[in-house]
Amino acid sequence: MSKDIVKPSTLPGFMELLPKDQILFNKILDTIRKTYEEFGFIPLDTPLIEKSEVLLAKGGGETEKQIYRFTKGDTDMALRFDLTVPLARYVAQHFSDLTFPFRRYHIGKVYRGEKSQRGRFREFYQCDVDIIGNGKLSVIYDAEIVSIIYATFNNLGFKDFTVRINNRKILNGFFASLNVQNTVDVLRTIDKLEKIGEKGVISELKGIGLTENTIDKILNFIKIQGTNQEKLQALKSLDMHTEVFQNGIDELTTVIEYLNSFGVPEKNYMIDLTIARGLDYYTGTVYETFLDNYPEIGSVCSGGRYENLAEYYTTQKLPGVGVSIGLTRLFYQLKEAGLLESDTPSTLTKVLVVPMDATCNEYSIKVANTLRESGIISEVYFEEVKVGKKLNYANKLDIPYVVLIGEDEIQRQMVSLKNMKTGYQETLAIDEAIKSVK
Amino acid sequence: MSKDIVKPSTLPGFMELLPKDQILFNKILDTIRKTYEEFGFIPLDTPLIEKSEVLLAKGGGETEKQIYRFTKGDTDMALRFDLTVPLARYVAQHFSDLTFPFRRYHIGKVYRGEKSQRGRFREFYQCDVDIIGNGKLSVIYDAEIVSIIYATFNNLGFKDFTVRINNRKILNGFFASLNVQNTVDVLRTIDKLEKIGEKGVISELKGIGLTENTIDKILNFIKIQGTNQEKLQALKSLDMHTEVFQNGIDELTTVIEYLNSFGVPEKNYMIDLTIARGLDYYTGTVYETFLDNYPEIGSVCSGGRYENLAEYYTTQKLPGVGVSIGLTRLFYQLKEAGLLESDTPSTLTKVLVVPMDATCNEYSIKVANTLRESGIISEVYFEEVKVGKKLNYANKLDIPYVVLIGEDEIQRQMVSLKNMKTGYQETLAIDEAIKSVK
Repeated sequence: MSKDIVKPSTLPGFMELLPKDQILFNKILDTIRKTYEEFGFIPLDTPLIEKSEVLLAKGGGETEKQIYRFTKGDTDMALRFDLTVPLARYVAQHFSDLTFPFRRYHIGKVYRGEKSQRGRFREFYQCDVDIIGNGKLSVIYDAEIVSIIYATFNNLGFKDFTVRINNRKILNGFFASLNVQNTVDVLRTIDKLEKIGEKGVISELKGIGLTENTIDKILNFIKIQGTNQEKLQALKSLDMHTEVFQNGIDELTTVIEYLNSFGVPEKNYMIDLTIARGLDYYTGTVYETFLDNYPEIGSVCSGGRYENLAEYYTTQKLPGVGVSIGLTRLFYQLKEAGLLESDTPSTLTKVLVVPMDATCNEYSIKVANTLRESGIISEVYFEEVKVGKKLNYANKLDIPYVVLIGEDEIQRQMVSLKNMKTGYQETLAIDEAIKSVK
Repeated sequence: MSKDIVKPSTLPGFMELLPKDQILFNKILDTIRKTYEEFGFIPLDTPLIEKSEVLLAKGGGETEKQIYRFTKGDTDMALRFDLTVPLARYVAQHFSDLTFPFRRYHIGKVYRGEKSQRGRFREFYQCDVDIIGNGKLSVIYDAEIVSIIYATFNNLGFKDFTVRINNRKILNGFFASLNVQNTVDVLRTIDKLEKIGEKGVISELKGIGLTENTIDKILNFIKIQGTNQEKLQALKSLDMHTEVFQNGIDELTTVIEYLNSFGVPEKNYMIDLTIARGLDYYTGTVYETFLDNYPEIGSVCSGGRYENLAEYYTTQKLPGVGVSIGLTRLFYQLKEAGLLESDTPSTLTKVLVVPMDATCNEYSIKVANTLRESGIISEVYFEEVKVGKKLNYANKLDIPYVVLIGEDEIQRQMVSLKNMKTGYQETLAIDEAIKSVK
C-alpha cells in the first residue's frame, strides 16, 4: 500500500530542539523555576487560549495585529501573547481566593505572529515573577525583584551582568517641569538611545516637535554620570519641586539602599536614567538586564512597577512589580554567542546496561533497577545486535558509563563497568560500581 | 476615568487551578517527569501549533472535527490534539540526528474541541513515554513499559492499581480464524465491555452482522478466566494455527515472563483479553491501567505497540511502544473521588520572616537569605501593617513557620521562631532555627 508522504516540517518562527539542546534548555528552565520558588513564589498555570474579549480588553496597538485569533463554533478566542494579561485576568477572577501580597511565578509559552526573522520567535517561553498588592505595595518589593534577577542569573552561571534601574516618576516629573506633553512618545524615543544613538534620538525628538532647548535638557538629564550615589545626588540637586519627581527620587533611593541589604553586589546593578521601557504600562521602578560582554543581545530580563494590574477586569486597585525573561530568544542568542555548554550529552542516562546476549537480560534488568534505586539514571539495551553496536549507542548519546553483563558477571554476581571517556573497564560488585559512577 | 470592565473568565473546558491545587498538580507532574527520566527517557518539546497538512496527514474521523484549526496570513495551522503525531513528525524530520532505539518522554498540553461536559477538558496535559525502533524493536521493551507504568503510579503513592495487558495479534488472529472481516468495528465493541455490559456487546455485534455462533465464540474467548499462566495456557490450547495468533501468544508470553524480572508485583498486572484499545493504531501489546477501588475513573494510563509510527511522513519503518497519562482529567477525577491530599499549603514557602517594623527590615532580609542558602524557601513580609495581619498572611497560606524579628532579636543576633501549627515560639540562633525547621 503506497501512501502520500507529507514532508515533516514545523512552521517558521517556532523553535524546536534536538535532544542535546532540549536537555540544556530544560536545565536553564529548571534553574529559573527553582530560583523563583526559593523566594516563595507560587506556581501558576493558565490556559493558552483565552476569550478574545478578555485578551483584548485593553485593545489597540501592535498586539492586536500579532495575535493568533480564531473562532470555533460561536466562540471568539485567541492565544495569549504574554503572561501578564492572563495574570491580570486570574487575579481579578479569583481575587477573593487569593492572599495578598500575591507572589506568583509563571513559566509558559506565549504567541505573537511577528514578522518572521532570524532570532525572532512566534512561539516562545516567558518566565515571569510578579508580586501583586491589594490597594498598595511597599517599594521594598521593587528592590527584592532586583535580588531575584541577581539570584537567577547568578544561579544560571553568569557573573558579568548588570541590572539597570530607573524610575518612571523621575522621567515623568522631569518632563512635566519641561512642559513636554507627549511623554509616551518621548520615552519611547529615549528608550532607543542604545539602539539608534544620540543623533538618532535628537532627530526623533525634533520630529516629535520638541525645541532644541528642551532636547538639550533631556539629553543632559539622561546622561547624568557617576556612581549610583552621585547620580542620586545629581538628581536631587536638579532642584525640581514637582511631587512626582520627588517621589521618583525617594523610591529610587529606597531601592538602591535596600539592594545592599538584599546582598546584590554593587557591580551587578546601576542607575540608568535612559531606561524607560517602551510600554506605557510601567509607572515607577523599571529594570533592564544586560550581559556586560554581550550588549548586542539586548535586555535579557526586563520589567517594572505598575500602578494597576487588572483595571480592565476589576475596580480593585492592584499595584504590582515584576520581571520577565524571554527564554526562547535568550537561549537562541546564548547559543549563537557560543555561551552554552558544548560538551553536554544527548540523554540524561548515566549508565547503559548491556547484556551480552538474551540470557543475560534478566540479571541486566536487576542491575539497572538497583542503579536506579541509587538515583543513577539507567537503561538496558535489549535489541539483539553485536556488542559493538550496543556500545556505539552509548557513544552516540554520550552516556558516560556502560555496564557489561555476560555469563561470567552473572556467575560472580558482579558487573563490568566501562568508563566510556577513558575506556577503562573493571569488574566490580554492584555497590562498588554505584560508588564509582557517583 | 471610568473604564468598561470586561468580566474576567476562562473558556469552558479549560482547567485553571487555585494555588493549593496548582502546587499539588505540579507535584504530580514532577513525579511523573522524574520517573520517566529515571528510566533514561529524553525530554522533548514541540510547538503547540503545527501545519494543518502535517497534523491532519492521517486525516478523517473525529479528530478533524475536534481540532482547533485556523489561518494567519496564508498559513493553515492547527493546535496539536495529541503528542503522538508531533512525535511522528519529529522523528521523521530529525531522523538522521537521532539515535535508536529513541526513548523520549513528552509532557505538554494538547487541544480537542470536544463537547463540553463535566470532567471533559478541551485543553489537557498528556504525559507520554515512547520507545521507537529503527526497523525493528524488541518485544522486551513492551514489558519495560509496564514496569514504567508501575514505577510511575507507585511513586505517585498508589498501591492498588492494575495494568491490564493484551495483544492485538491474538484478537486479530482469532477473528481471522472465525472469518470476521470488520475487525476494527468488532474490537471497538469489545472495548466497551466494561461500559455497556455483555448484553450491550452482544447487541452491537449482532448489529455489525455477526452470527450468534460467532458471537458465542468471541464471548467465550474474551471471558477466559484464571491466573495469567492459566490464561496463556487456555489460549495455547485453543489450537489456532494462524501465524498472527501464535505470534500474539508468543509476545504476550514474553511480556508476562519479563515482568517478573522487571520487578513488577503480580498484583499490579493481569492479562485481560477484552482490552483492545479503540484505535486501529495499535498492532501488538496493548495496555490499560485501572485504579482497583475506582474502576469508574476508567483507564488512567493507556497505550501499546504500533508497527509504524511515522508512515505519513517517511518511508522509514519505525515501530514503537508507549503509554500516555491524561493528567488533567486524572487530576480532576482524583479530586472528585477525594483521593488528593487535602492538607497541602497554598504556597511553597516554609518560613515567613516578619519584621516588627521597618527598622527590622535589613536584618530580616539577611535572615531570609540565610534560610534560603540552607535550602529553606523563605520570604519577608514588607507591608507596614499590624503584626496580627502579618501572621494572618502566614495562616491563610498555611506557611508552617514564622520568624519574628524585633529590636531584641537584632541586638541578640537571634530569631524568634514560631511554629504556626502548635503556636510554640522560642528565641534561637539562626543555625538552630534552621535545624528546627528542617
